[in-house]
Amino acid sequence: MHLIDERLAQLNVTLPDAPSPAANYLPYLITGKQLWIAGQAAVVDGKHQFVGRLGAELSVADGKAAARLAAINVLAQVKAACNGDWNKLARCVRICGYLNATPEFADHPQVLDGASDFLVAALGDAGKHVRTVLGASSLRSRTALVIDAVFEME
Amino acid sequence: MHLIDERLAQLNVTLPDAPSPAANYLPYLITGKQLWIAGQAAVVDGKHQFVGRLGAELSVADGKAAARLAAINVLAQVKAACNGDWNKLARCVRICGYLNATPEFADHPQVLDGASDFLVAALGDAGKHVRTVLGASSLRSRTALVIDAVFEME
Amino acid sequence: MHLIDERLAQLNVTLPDAPSPAANYLPYLITGKQLWIAGQAAVVDGKHQFVGRLGAELSVADGKAAARLAAINVLAQVKAACNGDWNKLARCVRICGYLNATPEFADHPQVLDGASDFLVAALGDAGKHVRTVLGASSLRSRTALVIDAVFEME
Repeated sequence: MHLIDERLAQLNVTLPDAPSPAANYLPYLITGKQLWIAGQAAVVDGKHQFVGRLGAELSVADGKAAARLAAINVLAQVKAACNGDWNKLARCVRICGYLNATPEFADHPQVLDGASDFLVAALGDAGKHVRTVLGASSLRSRTALVIDAVFEME
Repeated sequence: MHLIDERLAQLNVTLPDAPSPAANYLPYLITGKQLWIAGQAAVVDGKHQFVGRLGAELSVADGKAAARLAAINVLAQVKAACNGDWNKLARCVRICGYLNATPEFADHPQVLDGASDFLVAALGDAGKHVRTVLGASSLRSRTALVIDAVFEME
Repeated sequence: MHLIDERLAQLNVTLPDAPSPAANYLPYLITGKQLWIAGQAAVVDGKHQFVGRLGAELSVADGKAAARLAAINVLAQVKAACNGDWNKLARCVRICGYLNATPEFADHPQVLDGASDFLVAALGDAGKHVRTVLGASSLRSRTALVIDAVFEME
């Protein structure tokens, strides 16, 4: 059993089948040694789990949970890109978090930590990344947040 | 005649001269095998074709048309980066769409499909890409949307 | 003395120690020949220098000054990534500016020029880059703007 699968088991996380794109685009693409992942939401079995805006209907705790779910979907895409072989993965490079947030919201880092903490817990040092987080005025289906990412392949 | 030019002719699209940057930056830059394109708006002959916000003054159909125009400008930059030789282009990697949208707007994927559909129609399989789309609270000159992109060169 | 240090001295800019990340992530990461920088704000000695929204509490001149400060912090991260040896740096590839801006704000390019002008002044031709700028509905700690970047290493 690969160490990443062991860590996921300890985290009680079963990676879902990689979610299908919402429209006419690819869920992931490999160019050279880089793996680019399309924006992922906190979707489980095709349903958005957190709908609304941070600073209004949604709390920081909601946002953190949504960020973790979106990062799980990012990792599901990574696994699909690796054909299930984690040895093909070198590391996470960067994530960007787009939060459906009111103009008054200010706790963006705490929310995106839900994704960053999960990636480091699952991938270890290979999960450490640079990141940017910002408030979006709106997102598809009024979902709470979207996260996209770039990884490095072996 | 290159297949891409044939497809553009069938689509009745004549690529414009690559639009000049709005300020102190480059319209495109090649680093290694990657071609990075600066944010492009739905500008024709220097004029913004769609001004206002999705969910207010602008409809989804407006947004889709704007996304197609912005993608045409992206492709004009790609052609300039290739010195007009499409054989230098390997594929589209990623686009990101920033939509000038109200907090209530939720149809971001339909809007960005205006760009994705055009890129696939013009470039074929080489036009398939990953993408992210989000609502921006505002954009330069109140333009409807901005799209930037990364391509892979041969 | 390296030409970049000479230019910084002429600009009266002393690069600060590279700011620490606001949460669980890396300030910079090198993958292949690319250097990715996490989102930087206009922070000096740990304090946000411009708080509020462009188009409301903050003027375009404020935004331009904030963009310059954020770009100085970007360059401080680049220097740290180079272990202080500018010969390791090839060029700036791309910056993205996320502006805490009202829905009515329209002068995004002028604001981000504060960053672009500084990078070109400090790095010369190696400072020329592609870029995108957008309005964010909100940002961490209500800071005026965040800038992230990709550079190319030698």
